[in-house]
Amino acid sequence: MPSVPSVKLNNGKEMPLVGFGLWKVDNATCADTVYNAIKVGYRLFDGACDYGNEKESGEGVARAIKDGLVKREELFIVSKLWNSFHDKERVGPICKKQLEDWGVDYFDLYYIHFPIALKYVDPSVKYPPSWTDENDELKPSKASYQDTYTAMEELYDQGLIKAIGISNVQGSLLLDIERYAKHMPQVLQIEHHPYLTQEPLVGLCKDRKIAITAYSSFGPQSFVELDMTSAKDTELLFDNKTVKSIADKHSKLPAQVLLRWATQRDIAVIPKSNNKDRLAANLDVCSFDLKEDEIKSISELDRGLRFNNPVNYGLPLPIFA
Amino acid sequence: MPSVPSVKLNNGKEMPLVGFGLWKVDNATCADTVYNAIKVGYRLFDGACDYGNEKESGEGVARAIKDGLVKREELFIVSKLWNSFHDKERVGPICKKQLEDWGVDYFDLYYIHFPIALKYVDPSVKYPPSWTDENDELKPSKASYQDTYTAMEELYDQGLIKAIGISNVQGSLLLDIERYAKHMPQVLQIEHHPYLTQEPLVGLCKDRKIAITAYSSFGPQSFVELDMTSAKDTELLFDNKTVKSIADKHSKLPAQVLLRWATQRDIAVIPKSNNKDRLAANLDVCSFDLKEDEIKSISELDRGLRFNNPVNYGLPLPIFA
Repeated sequence: MPSVPSVKLNNGKEMPLVGFGLWKVDNATCADTVYNAIKVGYRLFDGACDYGNEKESGEGVARAIKDGLVKREELFIVSKLWNSFHDKERVGPICKKQLEDWGVDYFDLYYIHFPIALKYVDPSVKYPPSWTDENDELKPSKASYQDTYTAMEELYDQGLIKAIGISNVQGSLLLDIERYAKHMPQVLQIEHHPYLTQEPLVGLCKDRKIAITAYSSFGPQSFVELDMTSAKDTELLFDNKTVKSIADKHSKLPAQVLLRWATQRDIAVIPKSNNKDRLAANLDVCSFDLKEDEIKSISELDRGLRFNNPVNYGLPLPIFA
Repeated sequence: MPSVPSVKLNNGKEMPLVGFGLWKVDNATCADTVYNAIKVGYRLFDGACDYGNEKESGEGVARAIKDGLVKREELFIVSKLWNSFHDKERVGPICKKQLEDWGVDYFDLYYIHFPIALKYVDPSVKYPPSWTDENDELKPSKASYQDTYTAMEELYDQGLIKAIGISNVQGSLLLDIERYAKHMPQVLQIEHHPYLTQEPLVGLCKDRKIAITAYSSFGPQSFVELDMTSAKDTELLFDNKTVKSIADKHSKLPAQVLLRWATQRDIAVIPKSNNKDRLAANLDVCSFDLKEDEIKSISELDRGLRFNNPVNYGLPLPIFA
């Protein structure tokens, strides 16, 4: 089993640098996928209310624990607060529901998924709620980010979450959080790949001792599946000649190079795969080192190209404007 | 005198689309410059605590009023709250001091200059305070943007300011302001020129009925004077062949084309010039129209190139990260 190093968070907890991302993992296969991922060596699972597979993920975890593959304390279970639960009185109850779905009594890390506050939708009416309410309308909530963040801090103080995460946040909002936070966030999760390196934001987080988790490490790949035009019009990173030639030199897969490009800079990654070989390959991305100039030449592919923008889904929520 | 159209703000007030920017106007000549600008037809003056010339600007205004060139109510006087006055109890007193410096009893528009909160520095100790305190150290304040914004709303309710402005704000922070604002901001002032078009942010403001004022409409020009490397390494917009050929076609100056590119899209501009002819030329930028494809070809010069970033001045304040 490949050994996966950890990154130490600003509260002393350790977070594995490589985890398994649960976005777009089918409900039908999710429990088995999680079980197999644990068997292969994954310890961090990055879930979310919005992914709609928390119960199934929890089933996979429970089976693995029952079979003696792993103990709860060896796992690092991550979830996220969805936009429709930003009102401060909704944060605690939904986190508890999500814990129940997973069958665990704490999350190792719980993120605010987006800096977007939407109208509350009762889980008994529609769950997961998606971007729209029970009448399929997009309705905002008046909950400020501070309201929501303060409620997250309460979960942290209660021990229900062991680390506070923020996600899809830009510099000016992060600097504002810093002013009112009683506990600074431990982790920022952002879209991060060679086409979108966000170096100033990465630098800000390093300076503030906020760890970074990269999502969509393979760039356009995930969004081609969603039929996104800008993704289909972009060369896949797996086909990029810089990435391929570096992979060849190290006798690694392009995917492994892309993941190592992040982890070697202490940026955590959360790839997913339904294929068992790729599952193992994606985990084995800390056992070789890229040269400094290889990292640099990959970073130079940056073109500020963001795929996971609500605006790209036709939603009038320009959080990255 | 060229006629300058106005843009109607979301509270019904009218703001001239062309004004005079007071940044870097020398104290020695400032009163005369303002006086002459009024004579030429300028009605909007865009000042700030940080520019260090509010008293002199006020002298120019007072002389123009005394000489019967203009009445106070025909002017649109703009100022800005500096970073070191973000603590909520500092907002009112400093605004009143600035009004006194100008010799007026209200501002037509008062901006939060940056989404950056710095430690209070008493005006009797150091004024304008710049980025550092009395010991030349950069020290943050814990005032959240909401604290400061709420204090701005109180000034508005008291009639000391007739419109609330925000400046150098990104999408995610603007969407947060919207959640707690009792009065939505009337104007956002941002760096905006063909090398930095910020179309998503412009679109967000149009949607929210927030007017936009562009600063640094000439792009690198202002920053070459400050010896900024990225500005010196960039082709001046006045020398750009797209801009020049459009200017030639209309028998206008490149500067006029750059200003018309903004004003024709209802984006206000605030150029400054110490030269009397250019002063007049800069005001005369609404009397001709660019063709749609000319506007588009200028917008296509966009390369996300921002000059007025605190980070470019060596300050660890990555608000645009």
